[in-house]
Amino acid sequence: MPFGSVSVVADLRAAVEGADVLADPSDLARYAHDDAEWADFADPIAVVLAESIDQVAATVRFAATSGLHVVARGAGTGLSGGANATARSIVLSLERMTRIVEIDPGERIAVAEAGVLNDDLRRAVAAHGLWYPPDPASHRISTLGGNAATNAGGICCVKYGVTRDYVLGLTVVLADGEVVRLGRRTAKGVTGYDLSALMVGSEGTLGIIVELTLKLLPLGGREERAVVGSFDALETAGRAVAEISAAGIVPSALELIDRTCIEAVDAWKGLGLPHGVEALLLARVDEVGAAGDALASQVAERMAHAGALTVERGASPADADRLFLARRLAYPAVQRLGPVLTEDICVPRARVPEMLARIQATASEHDVVIANIAHAGDGNLHPLIIAPEGDDAAKARAKLAFDRIVEDCRELGGTVTGEHGVGLLKLAGASAELSPRVVELHRAVKHAFDPAGVLNPGKAFPT
Amino acid sequence: MPFGSVSVVADLRAAVEGADVLADPSDLARYAHDDAEWADFADPIAVVLAESIDQVAATVRFAATSGLHVVARGAGTGLSGGANATARSIVLSLERMTRIVEIDPGERIAVAEAGVLNDDLRRAVAAHGLWYPPDPASHRISTLGGNAATNAGGICCVKYGVTRDYVLGLTVVLADGEVVRLGRRTAKGVTGYDLSALMVGSEGTLGIIVELTLKLLPLGGREERAVVGSFDALETAGRAVAEISAAGIVPSALELIDRTCIEAVDAWKGLGLPHGVEALLLARVDEVGAAGDALASQVAERMAHAGALTVERGASPADADRLFLARRLAYPAVQRLGPVLTEDICVPRARVPEMLARIQATASEHDVVIANIAHAGDGNLHPLIIAPEGDDAAKARAKLAFDRIVEDCRELGGTVTGEHGVGLLKLAGASAELSPRVVELHRAVKHAFDPAGVLNPGKAFPT
Repeated sequence: MPFGSVSVVADLRAAVEGADVLADPSDLARYAHDDAEWADFADPIAVVLAESIDQVAATVRFAATSGLHVVARGAGTGLSGGANATARSIVLSLERMTRIVEIDPGERIAVAEAGVLNDDLRRAVAAHGLWYPPDPASHRISTLGGNAATNAGGICCVKYGVTRDYVLGLTVVLADGEVVRLGRRTAKGVTGYDLSALMVGSEGTLGIIVELTLKLLPLGGREERAVVGSFDALETAGRAVAEISAAGIVPSALELIDRTCIEAVDAWKGLGLPHGVEALLLARVDEVGAAGDALASQVAERMAHAGALTVERGASPADADRLFLARRLAYPAVQRLGPVLTEDICVPRARVPEMLARIQATASEHDVVIANIAHAGDGNLHPLIIAPEGDDAAKARAKLAFDRIVEDCRELGGTVTGEHGVGLLKLAGASAELSPRVVELHRAVKHAFDPAGVLNPGKAFPT
Repeated sequence: MPFGSVSVVADLRAAVEGADVLADPSDLARYAHDDAEWADFADPIAVVLAESIDQVAATVRFAATSGLHVVARGAGTGLSGGANATARSIVLSLERMTRIVEIDPGERIAVAEAGVLNDDLRRAVAAHGLWYPPDPASHRISTLGGNAATNAGGICCVKYGVTRDYVLGLTVVLADGEVVRLGRRTAKGVTGYDLSALMVGSEGTLGIIVELTLKLLPLGGREERAVVGSFDALETAGRAVAEISAAGIVPSALELIDRTCIEAVDAWKGLGLPHGVEALLLARVDEVGAAGDALASQVAERMAHAGALTVERGASPADADRLFLARRLAYPAVQRLGPVLTEDICVPRARVPEMLARIQATASEHDVVIANIAHAGDGNLHPLIIAPEGDDAAKARAKLAFDRIVEDCRELGGTVTGEHGVGLLKLAGASAELSPRVVELHRAVKHAFDPAGVLNPGKAFPT
């Protein structure tokens, strides 16, 4: 550690009185990156574990006046490198800001600090008969602040939308340390620009979200029915997705996992998953009574019509839970096979079959293993490109495959990131997707919020 | 008309070849303001009736290079003066851009030009089994572009959200005439900042929306049941709203009209509405089958429990349609009584009864007639302050009442505009609601998009 840094850390400790400030090399390494494999990162100068809005503001003020950068993070579960430390940065972790400030059942809103885990809020509001829908696969371990900073999606999106749809208002620490409130608490409101919506998904580059006012739905009034189809080809499963969508059916979940994922999960957890199939489609509908039955039937019919090997309807709730658990475990299970380069493309639903076929062709062509999980009902695919540890040639081929998938997605009218964010991994893709003038608008907006470039430099949009 | 203007109009005509350019005094007067009573306006220099994106771009380029302003408008149904012409402005009407470019049932999206009427899109997508929910009271006559520029709400919001929730992507003409595409066509997408969400509700101050990519829902799968309660006091009706919300019920509509509105509609249209009651609550639920019956029962029980005079459940569809028609006609019916100063406050649902009581107290105190219509289920109230034509003293009292209502709404934790927008009428209210630093952020964002101040100056946020 250069001598100068020692005094910087001491000054930082004095500035953020009361907050733990980590500077041990092992801590710096631990907080140097999020869960994105292969994105660039640098060791931060220090890690601040803020416990209050004041400490967040003090950290930002310190960085702004010291010519340093602030990289905010929640639980570090991001998959695009959005929370990776950069040169001359302080990592500001909000994981200790875990207070649920308020739950108002009449208004159906909750106010929570940024470090509250998604599942903790979910549990707390359920006790009041309320439901917070956004459910990224990381919901047990990711924070509400991180979810909002990346506009996290999840399984429920196909029917219930993404994080932005549930953010009414935000408390934000700006790039000079001033604290502002954006948005509202009321059901509706159009006073001024929707800076709260702009902040959602901006990956900590415009401000640091420290508190959220979230819209909730009633917990009751839904009955879950599962329909599971197995397929002998990925593309056939994709066709079922397109047919379900074209029939005007909106399931409450429509997920896909392929053979590589199924086998990886089963080898790890022994869930007794079906073998010898190339893909499973896991659908749920949540209408009640006869309407739910009818919709589940329609989903089953569309799967059969598209060419499913088997379609199980009204499988027992335990069975359905097991299969959806497999979906949730697929990502960590695949990670056990080697470093994973995670894609996050989103294509029009009708193009899901073709995109899946192209992904397989890319795997063959570049001689890499690609596992597939997908929020298929949204056209949001997560090809997981796996390279064996230490195999540099495979790693190089994986990167080529990654770029090819992005290109194919764009050709099919898709977007390069459906829910993970641009971070660092999708800068090139974003550069292809956004016109030069739109990139210029991004730069101007960034300048409007953070003229000195204090916050999370180089992320979220290409420069 | 000053001599200089003649040559400006000639130059403008040459610049926007093919578009009608109006400059007759009667045309200028007709396009000088929207439907907001009492907001300031000036005669524009000219009115361009654009028929293409190119003509919009040419108009903006002309204004930018001539030191003029552009005030874009759709049908001019706005209620806050957002489309009122200002000094040295060209009014740019998009009413002739009425092409529905694409309807994609598989993706459940529509692409339409900004001048398409809300109802025309609704009808067109219904033919494909699809539904475009946003339903401002003006849906028969207002345009999609205007709806998006103001983030229009409506009756469906309480369950189905506002215009922003249905805008996936936009084509926008920027302040120098360049055309950009923002947002996406896919179900999800987080590539860069959500500039599309920022554009929605920005009242033509950041760019001019010329084409919209809109999310649709399936048309079917809903069954409407109406519940109508009558009340002997506004506050009691408000209590029923708060109780319905506190019970975790999400109706598909929950509207209020008071005695003044009921009598004004009946005097105009003779619909045979109930007399001798102070307020009606019009509720709808749209769950199917037994679930719909159960929810309608709960709504009826809450109304009765709150103290309704009468509660009609399962009134015939014709009856329900008639009452909801009365809700839609209330605003024009009240306008027949004299110039109307339209409020648009939104308070937490639990505060609806108190807010209604305060509005009545304000009416007494300032000796003005205030009629009330409300998207009550959202806490979004529209007190309509009526002053007899030509009575300047009454007009002055009405303005005082307007300010008092805004103040009361803020005291109860509300926002000064729920769905009409800041325009000109709510600049003072917005100034009270937004902190100085948030206003400064607005200025910086405006500067990022429109550094020369070409677009709709002085609207949307206080300066």
